[in-house]
Amino acid sequence: MVRIHSQRIVACTELMRAAGLDVLLLTKPSNMLYLTGDGRLCAYAMITAGGKVALGVPVTDLEDVRRIAHHDLIAGFDDEVGMIHSMAHHFEQFGITKGTVGLEYTFLTQSMMAMVTHPHAKPEQVLPKDCSHVLSQLRMVKDLDEIGKIRQAAKVATIGVRAAIAAVRPGETESGVAGAAEVAMRTAGAEGFWRSYVASGPRTNLAHGLPTLRRIEPDELVIIDLHPIVDGYSADICRTVCAGTPNGEQREAFELYVRAQQETIGMLRAGVTMVELEDHLHQVMRDGGHGNHIFGPAIHGVGIDFEEAPLPPGHAFFHGEKAPPPLPENTVLAVGNCGLYAGPWGVRVEDTNWVKAAGHETLTDAPRKLTT
Amino acid sequence: MVRIHSQRIVACTELMRAAGLDVLLLTKPSNMLYLTGDGRLCAYAMITAGGKVALGVPVTDLEDVRRIAHHDLIAGFDDEVGMIHSMAHHFEQFGITKGTVGLEYTFLTQSMMAMVTHPHAKPEQVLPKDCSHVLSQLRMVKDLDEIGKIRQAAKVATIGVRAAIAAVRPGETESGVAGAAEVAMRTAGAEGFWRSYVASGPRTNLAHGLPTLRRIEPDELVIIDLHPIVDGYSADICRTVCAGTPNGEQREAFELYVRAQQETIGMLRAGVTMVELEDHLHQVMRDGGHGNHIFGPAIHGVGIDFEEAPLPPGHAFFHGEKAPPPLPENTVLAVGNCGLYAGPWGVRVEDTNWVKAAGHETLTDAPRKLTT
Repeated sequence: MVRIHSQRIVACTELMRAAGLDVLLLTKPSNMLYLTGDGRLCAYAMITAGGKVALGVPVTDLEDVRRIAHHDLIAGFDDEVGMIHSMAHHFEQFGITKGTVGLEYTFLTQSMMAMVTHPHAKPEQVLPKDCSHVLSQLRMVKDLDEIGKIRQAAKVATIGVRAAIAAVRPGETESGVAGAAEVAMRTAGAEGFWRSYVASGPRTNLAHGLPTLRRIEPDELVIIDLHPIVDGYSADICRTVCAGTPNGEQREAFELYVRAQQETIGMLRAGVTMVELEDHLHQVMRDGGHGNHIFGPAIHGVGIDFEEAPLPPGHAFFHGEKAPPPLPENTVLAVGNCGLYAGPWGVRVEDTNWVKAAGHETLTDAPRKLTT
Repeated sequence: MVRIHSQRIVACTELMRAAGLDVLLLTKPSNMLYLTGDGRLCAYAMITAGGKVALGVPVTDLEDVRRIAHHDLIAGFDDEVGMIHSMAHHFEQFGITKGTVGLEYTFLTQSMMAMVTHPHAKPEQVLPKDCSHVLSQLRMVKDLDEIGKIRQAAKVATIGVRAAIAAVRPGETESGVAGAAEVAMRTAGAEGFWRSYVASGPRTNLAHGLPTLRRIEPDELVIIDLHPIVDGYSADICRTVCAGTPNGEQREAFELYVRAQQETIGMLRAGVTMVELEDHLHQVMRDGGHGNHIFGPAIHGVGIDFEEAPLPPGHAFFHGEKAPPPLPENTVLAVGNCGLYAGPWGVRVEDTNWVKAAGHETLTDAPRKLTT
């Protein structure tokens, strides 16, 4: 593991030089996990252009992080004052008095920004600059260790969605279906989840249908969208099922959406662009008369975060990310994120896929069928 | 409900005038839920000094929000471009061309900030200013409707922690214990959770011990910290139990911590300050020889967010919040957040409490005992 993190840090310093960044000060857990092997809350990682790593962590966690994480220097702090003083001390130990410090503009709130650029934290002549794109560019291409972890998360996601589908029946609540999925995923090895979405009946038309105590009625559609975290890595799966018999319109829309999703997955290979993929998925929906029923990016990257680079260009722009290049080999993409929202109901089917040189492998695996 | 939100908006406009804010542009779900009755992802609420409310939501969610939320104007958007254009249109409809717009600096990332202050979103002469403290001041004091919802969340948290304790035994994983808690909370009515912490053995010394697949060993301590969301409101409970027989040092530390926590809870009443409370809790720990084993704020507010105002002054400063006033009646506080971290292990016991004019009521309710 140490070797992997050393290699990632070397690659990082190359991109830092190209971006004119002298040092990075990271607080986003997923970025810290990627570069150092540990990404806990309430901590930071400082990476120099020479590839040195200083960590600051809660003093309670000092020995644990020392054991786990790739680092040259490490400091424990008692509180926020101690945290910013330890940053200043690390700048000093590395002899950094001027230049540019890369900060995660896509992660830092205004108040966190004020903290990490506080005069007691940062030398006055070290100027802040966004480094989000450096980390996105690095993390977009997965190594085989990462593919293995995402494969494991995808297995757990599959187990979760199958347990959820088994729990769907008239009278059950959305929250009950989510609970069935989550306990199955915990048992299968999930250390956590991003939000679990379960929405039924008219709520299937919502962009983000979090589970409620609403009881599923006979013949209603149910959307289940899960994102377990296993060994630091995520997967993304979504299925739509009917608690009884769907009507003809629902059946047609579902079949259209699965066709759009599956054809788009069929296009996955190194060199294809996010625009080509999204355009195709949308075109199938338009040709089927559902062009006005699309919402949100159709496709997004999956890795440590369940939604990460690459993002489609429009979405990326507003999230402070650069437009993605033609897909490199070993990106991992969730396809089917946009859904089909007809008004009174919606359908969505999404899978996590490994993009290879000349094709792809779908890592999530559960039936794409409206009736069970 | 409509009356409650009207009243809250009137109170909000009074604080806006005092803070020199002409309009608020909110994107933090908890703030939107408080003022309008709906707080979904990927949406915004604009509140004028005259108490008018304009909402922007995903077009998929338009009818659902129209039915649920207090508003004067509402717009659905297809994507981020549509979102910022709808903001501009709402500024125009309200006739706002200059002045100050309140933004949530404690919530907005740099990239979200760039989006909501984009020249296509906001009139050029409307200048951004932090409004976090206005919302914190409003939300710090709960009305009886809110107390009822937190009481319900506290009941669900209690059910969760009891289910987790029942699952603790040598050989069980931390993740298995978390799963038992979560499915019990879902069944009892939780629509979601903030992070569930379950840490065992040496991991009980971590500030934020997220569950892993680590198996509990005989006689190890286990910390369980849960935060269910019920009807939009949260509760916070933490218990420490032993999977067997604790040693004398652990037993003494646990008894000391429970005494510090219970004495501090005993001091809760309107007029007491966060500093007095935290000082007392720390003093008991210092007197017991554990002054070096404290980490994090001892006390924090609980409401829609599981950690919200009031925060202790030091913590508040670095989170962009103002120092809290002496506690008003009807604040809700979690007491016992700091824990006792001895090095090889830690203990933590935390409860959610309603602060009344002349006393308090503890809303969470599970035994504070190391052995079950």
